[in-house]
Amino acid sequence: MRKLTTLMPILVWGKNYGRAQLSGDLIAAVIVTIMLIPQSLAYALLAGLPPEAGLYASIVPILLYAAFGTSNALAVGPVAVVSLMTAATVGEVAAQGTAGYAVAALTLALLSGTMLLLMGLLRLGFVANFLSHPVIAGFITASGILIAFSQLKHILGIPAAGHTLPEIVESLSHNLGQLNILTLIIGIAATAFLFWVRKGMKRTLIGMGTEPRIADIAQKAGPVAAVVFTTLAVWVFGLDEKGVRIVGSVPQSLPPFTLPSFAPELVSALFLPALLISIIGFVESISVAETLAAKKRQRIDPDQELIGLGAANIGAAFSGGYPVTGGFARSVVNFDAGAETPAAGAFTAIGLAFAAVALTPLIYFLPTATLAATIIVAVLSLVDLTILKHTWRYSRADFAAVFSTILLTLGLGVEAGVSAGVLISVALHLYKTSRPHVAEVGLVPGTQHFRNIRRHTVEIDPTLLTLRIDESLYFVNARFLESLIRDRLAQNSKVKNIVLMCSAVNEIDYSALETLESLNEWLTDIGVGLHLSEVKGPVMDRLKRGHFPDELNGQIFMSQYDAWRELTNGAKAEAAE
Amino acid sequence: MRKLTTLMPILVWGKNYGRAQLSGDLIAAVIVTIMLIPQSLAYALLAGLPPEAGLYASIVPILLYAAFGTSNALAVGPVAVVSLMTAATVGEVAAQGTAGYAVAALTLALLSGTMLLLMGLLRLGFVANFLSHPVIAGFITASGILIAFSQLKHILGIPAAGHTLPEIVESLSHNLGQLNILTLIIGIAATAFLFWVRKGMKRTLIGMGTEPRIADIAQKAGPVAAVVFTTLAVWVFGLDEKGVRIVGSVPQSLPPFTLPSFAPELVSALFLPALLISIIGFVESISVAETLAAKKRQRIDPDQELIGLGAANIGAAFSGGYPVTGGFARSVVNFDAGAETPAAGAFTAIGLAFAAVALTPLIYFLPTATLAATIIVAVLSLVDLTILKHTWRYSRADFAAVFSTILLTLGLGVEAGVSAGVLISVALHLYKTSRPHVAEVGLVPGTQHFRNIRRHTVEIDPTLLTLRIDESLYFVNARFLESLIRDRLAQNSKVKNIVLMCSAVNEIDYSALETLESLNEWLTDIGVGLHLSEVKGPVMDRLKRGHFPDELNGQIFMSQYDAWRELTNGAKAEAAE
Repeated sequence: MRKLTTLMPILVWGKNYGRAQLSGDLIAAVIVTIMLIPQSLAYALLAGLPPEAGLYASIVPILLYAAFGTSNALAVGPVAVVSLMTAATVGEVAAQGTAGYAVAALTLALLSGTMLLLMGLLRLGFVANFLSHPVIAGFITASGILIAFSQLKHILGIPAAGHTLPEIVESLSHNLGQLNILTLIIGIAATAFLFWVRKGMKRTLIGMGTEPRIADIAQKAGPVAAVVFTTLAVWVFGLDEKGVRIVGSVPQSLPPFTLPSFAPELVSALFLPALLISIIGFVESISVAETLAAKKRQRIDPDQELIGLGAANIGAAFSGGYPVTGGFARSVVNFDAGAETPAAGAFTAIGLAFAAVALTPLIYFLPTATLAATIIVAVLSLVDLTILKHTWRYSRADFAAVFSTILLTLGLGVEAGVSAGVLISVALHLYKTSRPHVAEVGLVPGTQHFRNIRRHTVEIDPTLLTLRIDESLYFVNARFLESLIRDRLAQNSKVKNIVLMCSAVNEIDYSALETLESLNEWLTDIGVGLHLSEVKGPVMDRLKRGHFPDELNGQIFMSQYDAWRELTNGAKAEAAE
Repeated sequence: MRKLTTLMPILVWGKNYGRAQLSGDLIAAVIVTIMLIPQSLAYALLAGLPPEAGLYASIVPILLYAAFGTSNALAVGPVAVVSLMTAATVGEVAAQGTAGYAVAALTLALLSGTMLLLMGLLRLGFVANFLSHPVIAGFITASGILIAFSQLKHILGIPAAGHTLPEIVESLSHNLGQLNILTLIIGIAATAFLFWVRKGMKRTLIGMGTEPRIADIAQKAGPVAAVVFTTLAVWVFGLDEKGVRIVGSVPQSLPPFTLPSFAPELVSALFLPALLISIIGFVESISVAETLAAKKRQRIDPDQELIGLGAANIGAAFSGGYPVTGGFARSVVNFDAGAETPAAGAFTAIGLAFAAVALTPLIYFLPTATLAATIIVAVLSLVDLTILKHTWRYSRADFAAVFSTILLTLGLGVEAGVSAGVLISVALHLYKTSRPHVAEVGLVPGTQHFRNIRRHTVEIDPTLLTLRIDESLYFVNARFLESLIRDRLAQNSKVKNIVLMCSAVNEIDYSALETLESLNEWLTDIGVGLHLSEVKGPVMDRLKRGHFPDELNGQIFMSQYDAWRELTNGAKAEAAE
């Protein structure tokens, strides 16, 4: 059993909490709250939910993560990719805007939270490793593109739908006739302003003599400025009556107590998507948490992170939210602003709760085009197509994985894309290991070292064939090894002894053992000795359990040099007779 | 492009065909024909098809395999496991005994044949390697048990159904009241006789002074004797009127020309099962073909075998058959009887065609219990539970794969069983490589050899940490390596240099490269050198493409001994200052 202090890290850091931590945490909380208000509303829109769901999803989950999580800087809440996946999943079982849609989103959060919690308790944090970096990079990039396109309808003021790039583009072009020019002006202005805030504002302000710290805070408040100005514009000029879509009334309330549905058909329909969302959310969150922790030489416990995220999602399910995870941008802002402990998150939650109770009437006239602009500017920073160039140069297999992940995510949607990415990574790995690199090696003169005869000048003996197998021997390549040795011997009739140099053989599974046994039988028949060298401890222990060393017609040498001395001397003696 | 003589091996062996080959092939053909007549009828029964379908499935497919296949001894036709899978699949889309059932079986053969042909043309023969030996062994054993149980209804003379062990047992016990005692007597007598034929007859005959060659032929004719005697018994005593089920009228005909269905819903329902049947059939066939070829130092071309089996199955689809593959028992008999070329198969086809035209009236009174006995005796030789004991002793992971394959095949049916077996094998492999063995190594005194400090007495230097990583570095274990090194350094502050000894690192994929880059950055920050040693040629080539050697804060040594001399000398010099 794990100790309570491990399961609830708050019991450790809470005890030593003092003034120093408090001031850092408070400043960070204020900055993050200002940033999160428009972002939370915008991501709720992306998930197909009413704007307040984004605020609610940021309050209780943050508090629960603060109690159970291990990262001092991670900010939990709605994020772009998970919001998109929520929309794609829930859209399959309910129509947007219905009560069933909101309940399905709660149920998705509950399922995802339960899965994360169970994975944490079962210490399954390693499953995140089954997603390769290129697949993650490709998936995030493609999701960013999908999200940006999905928001264009709000910028153009037209209806559109779809969960894949062709669907969205087709739907947009079909409805282009209904374009609302006022919405387009607001959307383009907001997008341009936010891009400038992100890329050019700080430099301009500093150039104008502003203190860097002030310029920094101004930059973080930029999205709030966009919200304020566009809301005022709509209100003053009555643009909502001229076709500009606005957020409208948002309830003034703390997060309500909500109940997810336990209907079996809904649960079974959401099960697989919830698993995918859990894994993607976990991978995104743990990457951010580890990056930030490494900067302060702190450690993150992946299994405890699963528990923290699980608790956060279960909290979201019962407080009017939807699936959440640790977000990249908000966590980096939190870290940079000086968050010292998870208490910074708790203060952010208080700030957002205040916003939910007091500020919602102020956003009645907020145009959805502004929220869409917030999303577009945020997600385009996720799009990084250079991964294609890098992987192409480094390894075609990695390139294939990232390229197909991007293509399938854009063409078939997020779930198909990420599933295919995982399958392709695994299949490519199996394919690569199914045809391992095998080098014939010889002695580097004057050393005890053996290298590939094709790459180095080495001594060899025609009666001795030494093959260094550069791969674990297991079912995927067992047949390959057998074919290879049969082919090698067919080409070369002088060989009296074969040594398999096993310095790179990290495992010999039962399939490979059977292959070695049948090779040994065949080589015994044709009078060729089969030897192994440099077999590793764990592999040797296992071979002994299978009695292979007794059956082997040759020897097992500790070093390849021992094998060389023994077998070449023997051969020379024979030749001299 | 492949040459025509590669695509049609008949063009090569046909040119040199002479008297010597002819006599061997003819004798083999007679013996195999005698063996195949009852077996073909029985397997058709197992597949839920009329008995003549078994004969038809043995005629055209054998001829096509003879033209395209590469094995000189492989006998293609209906086999037990594929017949069972056919029954399980086709039973899902049509009721047994209907015309739709037969058409679905033809469609399954066409799909499977097309897939095999495409895989052959695309040179995908390696996919057979994705099934580990233990999974295959477990699957064949469990299928044998399922088949034997499925035939008990014919021995007991009661109706029963089901594709899983619990279903079959439940169905049998439910109908046990309808037991037909005469059927049971015939069934038990036939089973006992056939067991004796297989196990004891040859010895008894030789003991009585019969020549071994004659005893051998008598053994092969045993099943025909069982057919003849039980048929006579039914006819003479009119047992069919007392409830003993008989084969009844079988059309006297050469294989008819038949058309599979191309209805999209049928094709899509049969698609995945056809893929499974193709792979299982191919694995069974290639194993037999390679075993027999090795005995004569011949080689089998897996990709050409796919083409041969593909042609055979497409032939089955258009001539009243169902999915076929190379069978173990019949091929061994063919080989032992002296088959020299695929022409032996062609002569067998002629023999079976004669049987289909001339002998079918003679089996009108043949009891189905005799056919069931033929199947039971044949499949029980496939059941080998010792694989459980062997894998348990050798490796728990292999045991887990074989045990769950057996359990899931018996409990959920053949398709679920074999799919789960493949997934479990792959998942276990990924899990094992996700936590690789990493050994801290030191110098074996008086040598240039480095071994694990926990297993050997070796020299070490406290400022130098050398880790031998016993696994390729790829996405599944990239995070593990990073954690491991961070933990090791946290425990040991004296370390000034880390050497990663890469003699067992057969690949560094893009995910692992990114991990190494971030490790290098971190180690540079804290003033620890990162070095690599014994990097293999192909791995080094790739690292250079990624510019990693330039970024590395340390060096890349050809041998670990070079690293030791350089880095320990340096440390000693520093200590002396």
